[in-house]
Amino acid sequence: MPQLTGGDSSLLRRINSAVTLRALRDGAVLTLTQLVGETGLSRPTVEGVIEGLIESGLVVEVDPASAGPPHSESVRQRGRPARHFRFRAEAGHLLGVEIGTHGARAIISDLRGRTLGAYGRPIDESTEADERLALVRGTVAELLRRGGISRDTLWAVGVGTPGVVDSDGVVQLGTALPGWTGLDLANKLRRSFRCPVLVENDANLAAIGEHWKGAAIGKGDVVFVLAGLSPGAGSLIGGRLHRGFGGAAGEIGSLHLLGQESEPSQLLSSSVSKLRDPLDEAAVARVLSLAQEGDHAAMHVRDRFLARLVRDVAALVLAIDPQIVVVGGWASGLDGVVEPLREQLSRLCLRPPEVQIAALGDAAIAIGAVKLAFDHAEQQLFAVDQ
Amino acid sequence: MPQLTGGDSSLLRRINSAVTLRALRDGAVLTLTQLVGETGLSRPTVEGVIEGLIESGLVVEVDPASAGPPHSESVRQRGRPARHFRFRAEAGHLLGVEIGTHGARAIISDLRGRTLGAYGRPIDESTEADERLALVRGTVAELLRRGGISRDTLWAVGVGTPGVVDSDGVVQLGTALPGWTGLDLANKLRRSFRCPVLVENDANLAAIGEHWKGAAIGKGDVVFVLAGLSPGAGSLIGGRLHRGFGGAAGEIGSLHLLGQESEPSQLLSSSVSKLRDPLDEAAVARVLSLAQEGDHAAMHVRDRFLARLVRDVAALVLAIDPQIVVVGGWASGLDGVVEPLREQLSRLCLRPPEVQIAALGDAAIAIGAVKLAFDHAEQQLFAVDQ
Repeated sequence: MPQLTGGDSSLLRRINSAVTLRALRDGAVLTLTQLVGETGLSRPTVEGVIEGLIESGLVVEVDPASAGPPHSESVRQRGRPARHFRFRAEAGHLLGVEIGTHGARAIISDLRGRTLGAYGRPIDESTEADERLALVRGTVAELLRRGGISRDTLWAVGVGTPGVVDSDGVVQLGTALPGWTGLDLANKLRRSFRCPVLVENDANLAAIGEHWKGAAIGKGDVVFVLAGLSPGAGSLIGGRLHRGFGGAAGEIGSLHLLGQESEPSQLLSSSVSKLRDPLDEAAVARVLSLAQEGDHAAMHVRDRFLARLVRDVAALVLAIDPQIVVVGGWASGLDGVVEPLREQLSRLCLRPPEVQIAALGDAAIAIGAVKLAFDHAEQQLFAVDQ
Repeated sequence: MPQLTGGDSSLLRRINSAVTLRALRDGAVLTLTQLVGETGLSRPTVEGVIEGLIESGLVVEVDPASAGPPHSESVRQRGRPARHFRFRAEAGHLLGVEIGTHGARAIISDLRGRTLGAYGRPIDESTEADERLALVRGTVAELLRRGGISRDTLWAVGVGTPGVVDSDGVVQLGTALPGWTGLDLANKLRRSFRCPVLVENDANLAAIGEHWKGAAIGKGDVVFVLAGLSPGAGSLIGGRLHRGFGGAAGEIGSLHLLGQESEPSQLLSSSVSKLRDPLDEAAVARVLSLAQEGDHAAMHVRDRFLARLVRDVAALVLAIDPQIVVVGGWASGLDGVVEPLREQLSRLCLRPPEVQIAALGDAAIAIGAVKLAFDHAEQQLFAVDQ
C-alpha cells in the first residue's frame, strides 16, 4: 500500500492524516474549511495533510461543479471558489476468496468495501490440493481480468476454507477437501500476491459476512450455521469473531459421533447409515430426490438427517445464547430446517433467538472474506500505533 | 463506602488517590519516598493524598519495627525514621452468597479478597421463596455474628442462584427452586444491605470462582460445568464472563428434551424415566446407591444419566472451544463423569481442552460471588471516570 504521508511517518503526521481521511472516507466531498471543522485541526495542518494524501493517491481534488449541489460555503465565498476533496476509494482493492468443496468464488471490492465484481467456478470435490489451488488462482486471475483490475492494486486478500485454521493460516484439520489437513494455505497463496493474505474458517467468515451486509446487520451476538452433511458454525460475540482457544469453536460436525457411540442401541438402520458412512453428497442428493418422490425409506433418512442437524444447532445455541441464528449452506434450502429449528429453539430457550436464512446466500463466505481484507486495510489506514 | 479523598472529589485528586492506593494494595508497606518512586507523583502530592486516605480509613501508618525487616531506606536515613504506610484491607468487607436447591452458603472476605470466614446451612428443596430468603438472611447474619463483622462494613454483596438471571438481578427462569421464576432477587436482598447487591447465575459464578482461585487460574477460556440432574454451565471467554444475549448462555439443561422428542424411538424405558420425570434428587440418590450395590437396572439408569451428561457437555465444548473444562456440582464426584468426558472430548476435538474437577469444590459458587463483589469494590476504588 502507498505511504499515507509521502514518506513522513512521524506519529503526529500519521494521526492528522488518519483523522482527515476518516472525515472523507464515507464518501463526503469536503472543502478545506469543512475539513478544518470536521477534524479540529488547523487550516495549515489540513493543507499539508491533504497535499500528502493527494501525493499518495488516497485523496483527489474534485471539480465542485461535479460534486452535486454546491455547498453553501462555496456560494457565499467571494473570489476563487473553494477547493473540494474526496477519498479515492478506487486507490486500492480488497479481494475475498472462498475455497469450497465444490468450487471457488472470488469477490473484489474498493477501499470502501463496495463490491465491484464476482466470479466463481465449480471444482470437483475429489480435486487434490495443488490442483485445487491452481484453480483458485485461475478464478482470481479471471475476476481481475474481467474487471480490468491490476493485481498490484490489491491491499489485502481474505480467504475462507472449510476446516480448523490456526492464526498463521495453516489448516490444522480439513477433512472436507483432499490433502487439506496440514496445508499452509496462507503461505501457498501469498506467493500469488504482494499484499497480506489472511485465512479463516468458512463458517466464521459467513458469520462476519452476514453481520456486515446480510441478515445480521446491527446484531452483535450471531451464530451462523453452515448447514450441510457435517454442519459447521461461526459465531460473533459482542460483534467480534469468537474463534475459540484452539480456533475450533463451532466445529459441531462431530457431535453425532458422540450420540452414536454413547447410545449403541440407537445405531442407525442400514438405510440411515447411508448418510453417516463416508460422507458422500452424491448419495445424499439421490436420497433427497427419492424422498421428494415419496420414497418412504428415503423420507425416513432425510428426516433423521434434518433432526440431527436441528439438534446439533440447538446445542450450539444453548451454549452461546445468541441474538440471531443465520442458516446458510446447501441444506438451508431444504424444507424441514428453518421451521423445525425455530420450533425447537422456542421450546428449549427462555428467549429464543431470531432464526433467519442467510441473506447473502452462497456469497456469504466470500463477502466475509472481503470484510476480513477490508478490516486489515482499515487498520493500515487508520491505526496510528504501528 | 467511605469517600476516597475526604470529600474532595476533583478528578485529579481521585486519580492520584487511586494511583497511590494501587501501589499499596497488594500488601506492601511503603515509605513516602517509596510511594513517590512507585507513583511518579511529587512528594507533596503523595503527602496530601496519604493524609486523605488515612482520614477515609483506607490507609494506616504502621510502626516500621512491626513491618518486617527494615527497608534499606529507613536504615540509611538519619534523624527521624521514615513513616511507613499500608492499605487497610480490613477497612471494608465483601460478601458472597450462594442460594442453592439444598442450602445456603456465605463467605466473607476483606478488601483484598482474602477469605475471612464461611458459613452454610441446609435448606429443604421444597422451601418456598420467602422462607428461603429468610433462611439466606439468617445464614448471612450468623456468618457476620461469628466473625464479629458489622454489616455496615460491607462494600458489596454478590449472590449466586440457579436459573437465568437478567442484568437487573431478576430471575427470569428458575425451575430448580419453588417460586423462583420472576423473583426480583436483587431487590428483595437489597433491603437487608446498605451496599450494592449483585445477582448472577450460579454456574457463571462458579466459572469466575475457579478462574480466580481454583482450577482455572491464568486460563482465559473456561467452561465450568455444574454437573447435576439438569446440568448448567458458565463460560469465560478471554477472561470475561460470557452471559449470552439473553443471559442464558450455557443453559444446556434442556438439551435432552430435544433428543427425546426428535427421536421418539429412543424413548426411555420405564426404569430410565425415573431420572427424567419430574426430577427428584432423592430418587436419584436411591438409584445411585442401588447401582453401587450392583443392581443391574440401577446401573443402567446411572450409565444413561452419565452418558447424557457427557454428551451435553461435549456439545457445549464443541461450541465454545475452551482451554479448560472444570467440572463441579454433586455429580462431578461420580465415577464415570470426568474420565469419559476426557475420552469423548479427545475423540471429538482437534485440540481437546484440559478437563479438571473443581478445585474449590462446593465453595466455587460462593467464592465466585465474593469475586463479583470484589470487582465492584475495585471499580469503586480505582475507577476515576465515574
